[in-house]
Amino acid sequence: MNEDIKLINGSITSPIGFLASGVACGLKKNGNADLAIVSSTNMANACGVFTKNVVKGHSLKRTMRVLKNGKAKAVVINSGNANACVGNQGDKDADTMADLTSGLLSCHPDEVLTGSTGVIGLLLPMDKVRSGIADAVSKLDSSEESGHLAEIAIMTTDTVAKEFTIEIHIGGRPVTISGMAKGSGMIHPDMATMISVITTDCDIEHSMLQKALSMVTEKTFNRVSVDGDTSVCDMVVILANGQAENRTISDLFSNEFFLFTDALEYGCRKLSKDIAGDGEGATKLLEILVKNALTKEDAVKIINSVAKSPLVKTAMFGQDANWGRILTAVGYSGANFNPDHCNIFIGDLQVCANGNALPFDESIAKSILSQKEIHITIDLCDGDVDDHIWTCDFSYDYVKINGSYRS
Amino acid sequence: MNEDIKLINGSITSPIGFLASGVACGLKKNGNADLAIVSSTNMANACGVFTKNVVKGHSLKRTMRVLKNGKAKAVVINSGNANACVGNQGDKDADTMADLTSGLLSCHPDEVLTGSTGVIGLLLPMDKVRSGIADAVSKLDSSEESGHLAEIAIMTTDTVAKEFTIEIHIGGRPVTISGMAKGSGMIHPDMATMISVITTDCDIEHSMLQKALSMVTEKTFNRVSVDGDTSVCDMVVILANGQAENRTISDLFSNEFFLFTDALEYGCRKLSKDIAGDGEGATKLLEILVKNALTKEDAVKIINSVAKSPLVKTAMFGQDANWGRILTAVGYSGANFNPDHCNIFIGDLQVCANGNALPFDESIAKSILSQKEIHITIDLCDGDVDDHIWTCDFSYDYVKINGSYRS
Repeated sequence: MNEDIKLINGSITSPIGFLASGVACGLKKNGNADLAIVSSTNMANACGVFTKNVVKGHSLKRTMRVLKNGKAKAVVINSGNANACVGNQGDKDADTMADLTSGLLSCHPDEVLTGSTGVIGLLLPMDKVRSGIADAVSKLDSSEESGHLAEIAIMTTDTVAKEFTIEIHIGGRPVTISGMAKGSGMIHPDMATMISVITTDCDIEHSMLQKALSMVTEKTFNRVSVDGDTSVCDMVVILANGQAENRTISDLFSNEFFLFTDALEYGCRKLSKDIAGDGEGATKLLEILVKNALTKEDAVKIINSVAKSPLVKTAMFGQDANWGRILTAVGYSGANFNPDHCNIFIGDLQVCANGNALPFDESIAKSILSQKEIHITIDLCDGDVDDHIWTCDFSYDYVKINGSYRS
Repeated sequence: MNEDIKLINGSITSPIGFLASGVACGLKKNGNADLAIVSSTNMANACGVFTKNVVKGHSLKRTMRVLKNGKAKAVVINSGNANACVGNQGDKDADTMADLTSGLLSCHPDEVLTGSTGVIGLLLPMDKVRSGIADAVSKLDSSEESGHLAEIAIMTTDTVAKEFTIEIHIGGRPVTISGMAKGSGMIHPDMATMISVITTDCDIEHSMLQKALSMVTEKTFNRVSVDGDTSVCDMVVILANGQAENRTISDLFSNEFFLFTDALEYGCRKLSKDIAGDGEGATKLLEILVKNALTKEDAVKIINSVAKSPLVKTAMFGQDANWGRILTAVGYSGANFNPDHCNIFIGDLQVCANGNALPFDESIAKSILSQKEIHITIDLCDGDVDDHIWTCDFSYDYVKINGSYRS
């Protein structure tokens, strides 16, 4: 970690000029919080990255459209209902969410971003959303606690809230970046069933902000896979309101841009690992590393293939060093590689050399596999391209959670 | 079904001139049968189709090599050990299996095909294999029961033996085709962890036999997915010994060739559905149909994407008509399609029209989803290409079986 990057306690409201709230308006049957608003007291530069699924949720499509302005004052997100695949009414409902929020915040509807996550194919109960937005706007404040409530309100099957807050200094001025995210099923690059909102008081030009977000997403959020399913509602949005009053970051080759991007990457890496580790039913975080691939494409094919393999994921759940399944997944990935060069390590323990079994101490393997975080390294010895992905194991609970999600 | 095709009781020994046996030689810890031999009393035309995994098991690689001769007298298959990824010794052990078998059968080693299925990365205990082969050769006979024993001896996590026997008439002569197969995890096109041996007394030229097998495999075995994992040991081999004494099939455009191919397809379709329905932990067989895709490539991308989706498969296990997950999987498949044209049916019940939710009776959905066999139809209304795949649901037992497979 860059020593200029300091992880601090905080929440999505830690950057200067950000307010948040999270309330329960009845979208979730269990009565948990299900509507969050994050807003900036001034107009912020705003960018996003979005699901590549051909099918897109209505709230997300709206955000993609209004973000072309590059500005936003608020984000309103509901959980418990994806507002997806419900026809024109879904578009109207997303507009209504923004209209209601902007009306209460006295800004233009296009300055309000919308997000929804939950079950697909059900109309949003707008009476509940309406009262939820009124409630959430009335509770907006800058306390750390309000930020945490927002983080909780965007959760679906997540078991823990996911957040980071980082402080850096730009030209002597303290700058804060904070983020929240939700997982935790239907997760796979590109962009998971994942919604993340990032706030910062950094003063940074819009084009620099987009560049930083896109670069960082490719290395972090797009390297998370829980079940290989790419959702229709995934998005990451960032709002930068400039209230830190640092010298504006406007140069792609400046130290300031590098530092900002490093800090953003650090934070998003934390969120990404938290999402993978909190994957539905997960008992373990798996980091799959591919080393020395011939090309980037080969490396990406291999990490995706291994991370998606139910056989690899159930073996990890069972703490079984069944490396044959890893090599098999590499083999059917479609990547160009020579199996006779391939070495596989579980943690530091080599279990396969040149594509063949290597005798290893099962008790050492067992002790590595009993950890909460497991690193699997596949060294192809073919080229010089490395890549990685975070995923989790497949457990009974994954089946339990997903066998009855709508009910 | 073509009315000239008659499904009859029988086993892999039903075609004239075929012998089989299945014995336990200690490769499986539970003492179950684990070595099978199928042989023809005369030289047979023989062909195969093989895994496209870059990593290939040693027994399979040997079969690919010797099958270039186009002739075989016997197949020896062990279960419980994949003989894969163990270096040169694995190649030697496959050769030894063939040498031992051919020695006892008084034929050339290259006339013996070899197959292995089970755990990857462990050397075959050749003392056990040696005694197993001697035992199996001594027990070879043409009884239906011996055929069934062979079918059982190739099983791994399968819960039932899989077989078919079909009778057709070619030029007035009865011709029998019989097949056996094992699944049931690490199964995905192209070619599953699936070994199938097909015997027939049909007199058919080698090139016709290969053509028929390749065509049929594309429509049957390559349309089965259990978990998306493509094994390193998958193969289908067919032996045609000509003892039915029908007029030799030698013309690709003859009625005889059509009838033979139809019958083979019927049998392999049965094996394929049996494999999917007996997928590890499966409680249901799922048939995913794509209709009216723009191109074959689009159709194949979609069936694979839906069949591999853990979210679709767990919803089916939970008897939950969560069609949003189906549309989501179509959306991220990479296929070219218009989501606004897409209709989805569960059984005969339409649940999505033009990409949007359609109100439906949940009790009807529940009753459809409580069946053992479920058809999901995705009508894209974009073009005129149809395709299908068979898969199964994802249950607790899948996790249980695969969390501790090696132990």
